[in-house]
Amino acid sequence: MEKKEYKRLKRTPIHKGHIIDFYADTMELPNGKTAEWDFIGHKGAAAIVPVTDDGKVIMVRQYRNAVEKYTLEIPAGGLNSGEDMKTCAARELEEETGYRAEKVEHLIDLYTTVAFCNEKIGIYYTEHLIPSEQHLDEDEFVAIESYTVQELVDFIFTGQIEDAKTIAAILAYKEKKR
Amino acid sequence: MEKKEYKRLKRTPIHKGHIIDFYADTMELPNGKTAEWDFIGHKGAAAIVPVTDDGKVIMVRQYRNAVEKYTLEIPAGGLNSGEDMKTCAARELEEETGYRAEKVEHLIDLYTTVAFCNEKIGIYYTEHLIPSEQHLDEDEFVAIESYTVQELVDFIFTGQIEDAKTIAAILAYKEKKR
Repeated sequence: MEKKEYKRLKRTPIHKGHIIDFYADTMELPNGKTAEWDFIGHKGAAAIVPVTDDGKVIMVRQYRNAVEKYTLEIPAGGLNSGEDMKTCAARELEEETGYRAEKVEHLIDLYTTVAFCNEKIGIYYTEHLIPSEQHLDEDEFVAIESYTVQELVDFIFTGQIEDAKTIAAILAYKEKKR
Repeated sequence: MEKKEYKRLKRTPIHKGHIIDFYADTMELPNGKTAEWDFIGHKGAAAIVPVTDDGKVIMVRQYRNAVEKYTLEIPAGGLNSGEDMKTCAARELEEETGYRAEKVEHLIDLYTTVAFCNEKIGIYYTEHLIPSEQHLDEDEFVAIESYTVQELVDFIFTGQIEDAKTIAAILAYKEKKR
């Protein structure tokens, strides 16, 4: 394609949140006009499809204030300072579920919402889990559930799973293992 | 699971953006403590997997300032005021690609990033396209490309597609049609 030119003239910090920051970007568009676009800065995250030896996926159910409901998701969390995605995925698995991964393999990477946010999630999988100890953050309340991959695929089409990273991860894992 | 109680005590508007708004939510946690959580309000969106009679998917490539690159995505856009998701999906298809859908069918719904945002995307598909006219917004610059479903699935695993809604939609479409 012809690469028309966009140019960011300015990025103005508007608000520093707890896990995200809001900026106003002044853009020069390919037609020469200027526009102001919203931008949300995020530090990045990692997630993991943890599969037991007998083919069950360990999932977490937790309350999500933003969507005002309990959601069923794969274990995931934000990167700690300086942490790489693979390490983060393994750490979040252990913290949220109490299982340790013997070997963590890369599945896909994704951006959650490219229209306004740079949040990138590295998604991994593991197929052998070692029982360890759950140790949640002080304000984290998570319940563990486990399902077969096919049950989770069915949940995607019935609307029982609505979280984008979880949908992408479960379908990608199934596709990879076909 | 035991439904521990979360309670939102207050939602404070912080900044009104162009397509999103930033709020600070004061939460009462199940342990009785209080915390402030970020919340991004979004009006919702719709997207569509448009498949031609000969099995090609019509895709759009556009510059995404938030991730500082050109991305390959399914046609999508935000809801107009009062618009339902199915209507939005059909409208965005025609505006961005110049094809009209004869029949629009529901595929899945997803939330892009449940940790801090209520953006919900209704994802549809259509399998018969009628040539019409592309009519982009004034500041929208979009190139059209078309690929088979399998080519797009390969792009997901090679990292050439990184947009979450597109990954979820393409894999869900392939899964539905197996």
